[in-house]
Amino acid sequence: MEVFIEPIGRLMNEFSRLPGVGRKTAQRYAYKVISMPEEDVRAFAEALLDVKHKVRFCKICGNFTTGEVCDVCRLRDSSQICVVKEPKDVVALEKLHEYSGVYHVLHGVIDPMNGVTPNDIRIKELLARIGEGGVKEVILATNPDVEGEATAMYIARLIKPLGVKTTRIAHGVPVGSELEYTDEVTLARALKDRKEV
Amino acid sequence: MEVFIEPIGRLMNEFSRLPGVGRKTAQRYAYKVISMPEEDVRAFAEALLDVKHKVRFCKICGNFTTGEVCDVCRLRDSSQICVVKEPKDVVALEKLHEYSGVYHVLHGVIDPMNGVTPNDIRIKELLARIGEGGVKEVILATNPDVEGEATAMYIARLIKPLGVKTTRIAHGVPVGSELEYTDEVTLARALKDRKEV
Repeated sequence: MEVFIEPIGRLMNEFSRLPGVGRKTAQRYAYKVISMPEEDVRAFAEALLDVKHKVRFCKICGNFTTGEVCDVCRLRDSSQICVVKEPKDVVALEKLHEYSGVYHVLHGVIDPMNGVTPNDIRIKELLARIGEGGVKEVILATNPDVEGEATAMYIARLIKPLGVKTTRIAHGVPVGSELEYTDEVTLARALKDRKEV
Repeated sequence: MEVFIEPIGRLMNEFSRLPGVGRKTAQRYAYKVISMPEEDVRAFAEALLDVKHKVRFCKICGNFTTGEVCDVCRLRDSSQICVVKEPKDVVALEKLHEYSGVYHVLHGVIDPMNGVTPNDIRIKELLARIGEGGVKEVILATNPDVEGEATAMYIARLIKPLGVKTTRIAHGVPVGSELEYTDEVTLARALKDRKEV
């Protein structure tokens, strides 16, 4: 005899596909769904399907949008382009409410060990945008890891000859942290990139 | 400008209804759904609706089932009834593969502070089952907290006059734990309920 009846076991399997969800969490979620009013469950199912049907990639920046071109590309200062790895990086930057330019989502970083070459990510689309003119600065905001650094350097080498200002987000000691617990590579970088005050 | 476009924000709100899911986790789940193949998302949505449409309460024990009567009530030894608070307690006990009797799910415990009286939980249904005869033992397996204890004592007082053996799950030091870190109430109970070896 199965511990879970078929519809509950199946829903648990579906929840288990989500990142970080194990059997126990999937069970909690499934039992919560059973206790929800029918219209709420229906709304939940529709939201799932809607996100798949309505969300597409902006044909300019590659971020998620519901139309052809996203609101950021339509409405904001396109002379400044911030290059990121994934759509969720755009979310992290947008939450600051500090940046007024547009984005370019690469949908990956160069990673030869996993077979990702410069042609597999949206680098040529970035060059095409710059080629159309009007771009004054490209901010490279890929992650500060090996692949992110390599991708930033690779793109910088392609863009610089085009006469566009190319910048990289600063590396250093996180605000609010303690020197004692900062890793050596970050601390060395913070020292090297010191600024006059 | 919203950080999240409408379909993504809406799906995040739906995920946020699940227990323990905050904004950040809801975002991770929503982004995962976007990256899933369409047929997987459809299966997910169907599993959600199915659990709501197909799952009902067994008319004997009150546990979840897809038919009128659950497999446990149909197939197992009905002379032993284990009384629990919720369907998830049945899951915890079934995972042991130790118990061969049937269950009775109360769907709550007596909790006057929150307005739950004996009439609000499935106690009269339990008495009716015992009244039909054939029950040799009732195991009271409500949680070892104040409401669970009170409910167990209340039920025991009703059942004992009917001549049915009434037992309570043992309280004591959890297996694998250390005395030093066991709370005083549990330790006192373990001492009081000591068994001859």
